[in-house]
Amino acid sequence: MQVAMVEDKIVPVEQLEPIYFDRGFYFGDGVYEVVRSYDGKVFAIEEHLQRFANSLGAIGITGVDIDRIRRRLQKGFETAGISNAKIYFHITRGSAPRKHTYDADLKPNFFLTVTELPGDKEEKDKGIAVSTHPDWRWKRCDIKSLNLLANVLARQDAARKGCAEAILVDETGLITEGAGSAFFAIFGRTLQTAALTANILPSITRKYAIEAGKNIGLKVLEKSLTPRQAGRADELFIAVTTKDIVPVVEFDGKLISDGKPGRYTKLLTAEFLSFTV
Amino acid sequence: MQVAMVEDKIVPVEQLEPIYFDRGFYFGDGVYEVVRSYDGKVFAIEEHLQRFANSLGAIGITGVDIDRIRRRLQKGFETAGISNAKIYFHITRGSAPRKHTYDADLKPNFFLTVTELPGDKEEKDKGIAVSTHPDWRWKRCDIKSLNLLANVLARQDAARKGCAEAILVDETGLITEGAGSAFFAIFGRTLQTAALTANILPSITRKYAIEAGKNIGLKVLEKSLTPRQAGRADELFIAVTTKDIVPVVEFDGKLISDGKPGRYTKLLTAEFLSFTV
Repeated sequence: MQVAMVEDKIVPVEQLEPIYFDRGFYFGDGVYEVVRSYDGKVFAIEEHLQRFANSLGAIGITGVDIDRIRRRLQKGFETAGISNAKIYFHITRGSAPRKHTYDADLKPNFFLTVTELPGDKEEKDKGIAVSTHPDWRWKRCDIKSLNLLANVLARQDAARKGCAEAILVDETGLITEGAGSAFFAIFGRTLQTAALTANILPSITRKYAIEAGKNIGLKVLEKSLTPRQAGRADELFIAVTTKDIVPVVEFDGKLISDGKPGRYTKLLTAEFLSFTV
Repeated sequence: MQVAMVEDKIVPVEQLEPIYFDRGFYFGDGVYEVVRSYDGKVFAIEEHLQRFANSLGAIGITGVDIDRIRRRLQKGFETAGISNAKIYFHITRGSAPRKHTYDADLKPNFFLTVTELPGDKEEKDKGIAVSTHPDWRWKRCDIKSLNLLANVLARQDAARKGCAEAILVDETGLITEGAGSAFFAIFGRTLQTAALTANILPSITRKYAIEAGKNIGLKVLEKSLTPRQAGRADELFIAVTTKDIVPVVEFDGKLISDGKPGRYTKLLTAEFLSFTV
């Protein structure tokens, strides 16, 4: 007889809910998105849905109707009635007894949550500290997958050091991005961030931050930085869906400029917010 | 109001089972083991429990009583009453609303299944074909974690090519291991496999295969191979808990020697089986 156990309890396999056989569990075999609203209006929904479709395609999850996902997202958002909401959703390849390969007829599983975003005024006013961590992630970080243990370990390491984000450094000594954010430096009037490769998430907030930078007259340079270079920047910031732009005022224990959010970072944040209304 | 959706259905967050908030889902934040029995006797249980403890420690999941895990494993195995059983178990960091960092008081979640092993006589008699795939896995493959999407994609690619296993090749052009197995070559009287590093799982079957090799008089060389070198080996095989040793007779479409399981591979398999009784 096949059996399962949940904690100390024996459960006949046939009685287990399908979620116990979700490939999201066994393999992290799924992809996700995080979208937010500003004052009742969901921001950049089409870009997020397009990236979600790209992620699904990249790992070969087929048969997902993106229009249906959009409707679910809207239904969840409207039901919640939260004006500054964080909308998380994922699709896994489906539920089946554990084996690496998958059958074409698996039915993908959808899950979504809508929660209230915590305030970020203090982080934006004072800026945050960040610390570096080796980039242990897999080699397809352009796919927004559920394989996030490297991100978790890096972020927890940062938290232990009193930092709000981990900045990931690859084996060649170059910064890729944050554990959950894009990473930017400003030198003079130049806005610098790593170019998009298979090791970098094509961040939507990154795209809008670059657009905001151009709008306020900054030159944009897509080139990786070393931690040493980052520590000598005039300004640093991270870009992330849930908080758009957050100034970084301390990097591996070293103050950036005078340790206060920089002038261009503030201008960028204001410009970014103009996109969201 | 915070809401969740499962497929098209709105569910109040408070009514969702904790498993929907399992960090195993959101991040693959957990570790696992696969153990098997031979004719009613579980093989190498202590080594598997030790490696499980190592994996837990490496990702900072604390407070797990390994003696309790051993008792659960035995209880599950005895209840199932399957003589050639595959025992899969994992522990995730626990259930909590999604955020990367975790609180120290999270209660880990345990899950186990006992299923019947499929027969492997044909694979052992005829050997299998394998194909190479880029090693996209993260940089801590010494940890047996639930972040296995790279393994899934590689194995599925192999299946599409009619192959039973994917052999992973790193960015420097060297073979690390199989997507779900250790990988060995035999040249003359030398047994060769990659040395254990952060990119390789410390496979228990690998350890016993090396011991079996020494017992039958082979010299052991722990050094990575290129695919070109592997294709010219006298014999190839993979080592995996569920099937111990399986001959590889075709590598990226090229027959190995005469395309039949090799002499030493057969001797090794017999020697390996002597450890299991």
